[in-house]
Amino acid sequence: MAGSNGSATGDLKSQFLKVYSVLKSELLEDPAFEFTDDARQWVDRMLDYNVPGGKLNRGLSVIDSYKLLKEGQDLSEDEIFLASVLGWCIEWLQAYFLVLDDIMDNSHTRRGQPCWFRVEKVGLIAANDGVLLRNHIPRILKKHFRGNPYYVDLLELFNEVEFQTASGQMLDLITTLDGEKDLAKYKLAVHRRIVQYKTAYYSFYIPVACALLMAGENLDDHVLVKNVLIEMGVYFQVQDDFLDCFGAPEVIGKIGTDIEDFKCSWLVVQALDRVNEDQKKILYENYGKVDPDCVAKIKALYDELDLQAVFEEYESTSHKKLISSIEEHPSKAVQAVLKSFLGKIYKRQK
Amino acid sequence: MAGSNGSATGDLKSQFLKVYSVLKSELLEDPAFEFTDDARQWVDRMLDYNVPGGKLNRGLSVIDSYKLLKEGQDLSEDEIFLASVLGWCIEWLQAYFLVLDDIMDNSHTRRGQPCWFRVEKVGLIAANDGVLLRNHIPRILKKHFRGNPYYVDLLELFNEVEFQTASGQMLDLITTLDGEKDLAKYKLAVHRRIVQYKTAYYSFYIPVACALLMAGENLDDHVLVKNVLIEMGVYFQVQDDFLDCFGAPEVIGKIGTDIEDFKCSWLVVQALDRVNEDQKKILYENYGKVDPDCVAKIKALYDELDLQAVFEEYESTSHKKLISSIEEHPSKAVQAVLKSFLGKIYKRQK
Repeated sequence: MAGSNGSATGDLKSQFLKVYSVLKSELLEDPAFEFTDDARQWVDRMLDYNVPGGKLNRGLSVIDSYKLLKEGQDLSEDEIFLASVLGWCIEWLQAYFLVLDDIMDNSHTRRGQPCWFRVEKVGLIAANDGVLLRNHIPRILKKHFRGNPYYVDLLELFNEVEFQTASGQMLDLITTLDGEKDLAKYKLAVHRRIVQYKTAYYSFYIPVACALLMAGENLDDHVLVKNVLIEMGVYFQVQDDFLDCFGAPEVIGKIGTDIEDFKCSWLVVQALDRVNEDQKKILYENYGKVDPDCVAKIKALYDELDLQAVFEEYESTSHKKLISSIEEHPSKAVQAVLKSFLGKIYKRQK
Repeated sequence: MAGSNGSATGDLKSQFLKVYSVLKSELLEDPAFEFTDDARQWVDRMLDYNVPGGKLNRGLSVIDSYKLLKEGQDLSEDEIFLASVLGWCIEWLQAYFLVLDDIMDNSHTRRGQPCWFRVEKVGLIAANDGVLLRNHIPRILKKHFRGNPYYVDLLELFNEVEFQTASGQMLDLITTLDGEKDLAKYKLAVHRRIVQYKTAYYSFYIPVACALLMAGENLDDHVLVKNVLIEMGVYFQVQDDFLDCFGAPEVIGKIGTDIEDFKCSWLVVQALDRVNEDQKKILYENYGKVDPDCVAKIKALYDELDLQAVFEEYESTSHKKLISSIEEHPSKAVQAVLKSFLGKIYKRQK
């Protein structure tokens, strides 16, 4: 069973990383472009720096999901390889978003190293590298899936999810727009919409959708699966917002700055929903300021409003709703896929 | 005949612009994303600012080419509409590249107005807007071409051309890399490769390829057409490089800065090929400097080397070669498409 013990997981991950090497070699020899040695070296380094360094959860979950969908059946090496290729396409998509997001947010570090655009001699060439990462996806899909009955569906799936993610990112950017800091815009519906589009489709829906296509399914027949995964994605992001403020920095691996950054976080949305006039004044006067005193006042207000308890209530209600939606699904194999996803994130501390 | 007189051209262009309005409305109601009013307004303004303001040559040439391919036959309104849609997809592609290029080059103006990223409240959100522009193309193709026998070919064509353009851009960026100003890298083969990938595919090849697909052709059968269009694209860019230095600013609409910007221009490549040791020293000491005295020394050297005559010789040789390649093609209609393209650029002054 995938992920059931450390060494099996380790083995799965090292197998998965071998597929990365294959894909990278193919891209560096793509006949659609005549590489110079310098260009080949640049792309090689850019890929190694940006693609394989994350937790690889999204990519690995394509293989996990496909295994669960084909319950009991032995998978051929070819099937595992193709599921891995799709997993890597999602990791490439993620790398593309992160490279561009870091430029837009003027971030400093990513995955424990300087952001790509901050690396010497890279600078804004990183924007074009982001574009290249994005362009690698259809190159990979063409090489490995052309002629396959679900090839067009794969192209459309990646196109649609990229569109939704970029649209969610736009909503986030124009809602948080500098110089127009206005908490009145931060409502639960806005928060949900940003999270759904910016995170849920590419983090939760697309891995399962890839596995379903490989298993010969038509995605139009799986609206329930999509809705459940979107809900899970929203739930995941609410956890993220909560942990940014209340998580242990040594566990989550970073110090949250959502308050300083005037983020449309689930916490501030919940606070706005519960404040009296005096508390509202505190929020408006201190949210989005880098000053540690302002941040402390916001955190004290969150405690006063008992947002930890509000979150725990949300977590438990969401979990129940998700489980009951999942159990509506007629297929035990699909239920297993969804429950596996949920199990990985329920009550996570990081 | 397309473009044979001012009013017919004007009419064609206004018809073409009507299709832009249709496509924009469809994108602003795309059911794959739940727009807020703010988001819809943002995209509306972003599209109007970046998509329709150019000369529209690339877009219009899809319609021209398709008409020539269907010689004599009356075209239905639907055919004209679909050719226009493909034309606009190319304009969207161009807008995407320009928005991102302007960020990377830190440019100031584009098409007579400030670059999009310099507009108030836009800033680096422009990078995500570039991504959105790119994402609109598959949305448009899906809406208007899904179910069509050449739908996959269209998706692959746009994917491949985008990949080639981004690869050419990378080659240009890493060749011109700041801080490593080294003229030794500027050889004719490098110049050609940058130009071919960065410009020729999306400016010359893709409009004709779109028209061929609409006419039911298989692009694999049209290698000669592709090669001729790539050659034309290279020739077009050589003209551009020449006009940047020797064109009349009031005619070309801008003051060239290739010398100041240390560009891998056809002129500097030709100069490097012809200099003696003393002249080489002048090149190395003055190329890529903003100082007007340095620029003047480079221009004086270009005159000394008689690069205007070298260019005229190149222009005439290229033209002859292109004509003879075109006349090898078995189809008079295809010949007419290619000659129409060539006619538009031969000996252009702007």
